[in-house]
Amino acid sequence: MSELGKFWERASQIVNDTLDELIPSEEEEPKRLHAAIRWSVFAGGKRFRPTLVLAVGHVFGVEEKKLLRTAAAVEMIHTYSLIHDDLPAMDNDQVRRGRATCHVKFDEATAILAGDRLQVLAFEAIADDESLSYETRTKLIAELAKSAAQMANGQQMDLEAEGKRISLEELEKIHRNKTGAMISFSARAGAIIANASEQELKAITEYASNLGLLFQITDDLLDVTQTSENLGKTAGKDLVAEKATYPMFYGIDGALESAKQVHRESISALKKISKDTCLLVEIADFVLTRKK
Amino acid sequence: MSELGKFWERASQIVNDTLDELIPSEEEEPKRLHAAIRWSVFAGGKRFRPTLVLAVGHVFGVEEKKLLRTAAAVEMIHTYSLIHDDLPAMDNDQVRRGRATCHVKFDEATAILAGDRLQVLAFEAIADDESLSYETRTKLIAELAKSAAQMANGQQMDLEAEGKRISLEELEKIHRNKTGAMISFSARAGAIIANASEQELKAITEYASNLGLLFQITDDLLDVTQTSENLGKTAGKDLVAEKATYPMFYGIDGALESAKQVHRESISALKKISKDTCLLVEIADFVLTRKK
Repeated sequence: MSELGKFWERASQIVNDTLDELIPSEEEEPKRLHAAIRWSVFAGGKRFRPTLVLAVGHVFGVEEKKLLRTAAAVEMIHTYSLIHDDLPAMDNDQVRRGRATCHVKFDEATAILAGDRLQVLAFEAIADDESLSYETRTKLIAELAKSAAQMANGQQMDLEAEGKRISLEELEKIHRNKTGAMISFSARAGAIIANASEQELKAITEYASNLGLLFQITDDLLDVTQTSENLGKTAGKDLVAEKATYPMFYGIDGALESAKQVHRESISALKKISKDTCLLVEIADFVLTRKK
Repeated sequence: MSELGKFWERASQIVNDTLDELIPSEEEEPKRLHAAIRWSVFAGGKRFRPTLVLAVGHVFGVEEKKLLRTAAAVEMIHTYSLIHDDLPAMDNDQVRRGRATCHVKFDEATAILAGDRLQVLAFEAIADDESLSYETRTKLIAELAKSAAQMANGQQMDLEAEGKRISLEELEKIHRNKTGAMISFSARAGAIIANASEQELKAITEYASNLGLLFQITDDLLDVTQTSENLGKTAGKDLVAEKATYPMFYGIDGALESAKQVHRESISALKKISKDTCLLVEIADFVLTRKK
């Protein structure tokens, strides 16, 4: 297994343990709501965002325990957004991470409330993190709130763009908000917890914003080139929904070329950090070449 | 106009100004989402919860500007919960505060996202409040998150109880979560910002938890005794939904009696605070005798 593979496996494990600790058990009332939250959180997600929190923290030499709750909080916000985006009024998705979406397994009201609960659980997780100073907690919460707001804005823009002809500029704006903001927060959070310098934070932001864009381009590519079975979610749904995607603008080869370019920019930003950033390079490599 | 009347009018004014400052304009993208948020926030709500934040802060002699963002945050969380509770998958309400509910005026997807955005805006408002220490902000955020979680739990319990026979104990548990938690937080927030002593905080909590119960009993009474026109929302809907209410358990006279008892307990808790608590007594009087 590669260095990154080992790191990722361990990161997923400890993030899952932290999530399990922070999310009320299914035995606690209201049981159905807690079952719904757990159904979606423990659905075998890749834990890409929390792994990024841990990886940046690792590069900056932060103690692992200072990163865990923020990493879990990021995954909670991500999962809430998936639950709400999958609702019939939004993307109306039946399958997610290879199993029934929250509203299909439970019901719509429970899915809406599960998303709402995950959102506040995320803020509570950081506010109660005694391993961090009050100042750091406040900074993380302020930035997490802004990133989650951008994510919701991006989803609104995405819904409004469906079936419309939009420009490449508009497409990038949607993705910068919908996916990019939370990926940027994940990387920045590791650096904020490390008390990184302004210059380092700027370099991490540049790395992460390119990584977010790369993530989206390869996501679009996977939607047209892979099967639903492999993805664990409905493949080809962008085509059906007439959504603007990178392959639509550039063609498949062009989108791949563009992915490689963004990948290079992402890695180049890391050169401004005088630490061993190998792990972060490997993450960018992974996103470029991923098959799901 | 009574002392409370004047206080409340001014409180509503400055809370509205703060909300207007904190919520992005309808000219900002995504415009439709910001319009939806503003539609629900500026629908002429009573501003009961933020007024309670300001009133408790006032009793403890806190500078007004230290209370404004927390007061606004409480109203944001309250409004998000109304938007989501009104959705077709939940209470399916068409009218709220005298006008079309958010999903009726806009659409379901936008209403879900408007609620989501308000939720994070609330945390951002407190996290960015430079008039408070990092420690106070962190405390407020941790407690707000827990109260908002209880509120969502209460809504889940309420939905699950529809059409079922539940005990008085279960009814009170629903209300303690659904309405009580955020009313308690509102009162406690004023005292937390004031750096009140443990004993004072305990007395305020006792006051507020009785006030929350009183609020719910009179809410149930108004639902059966007032018209939709007067309430600005659908009257008699608890009866239609076969929801358990205090009048169902006690009859109308019995529920009124119970309200008076809870009102007395609420006021009695204030005697443990050696400040002029007149304003808080007047608030309890108001909740007991309100007509909408």
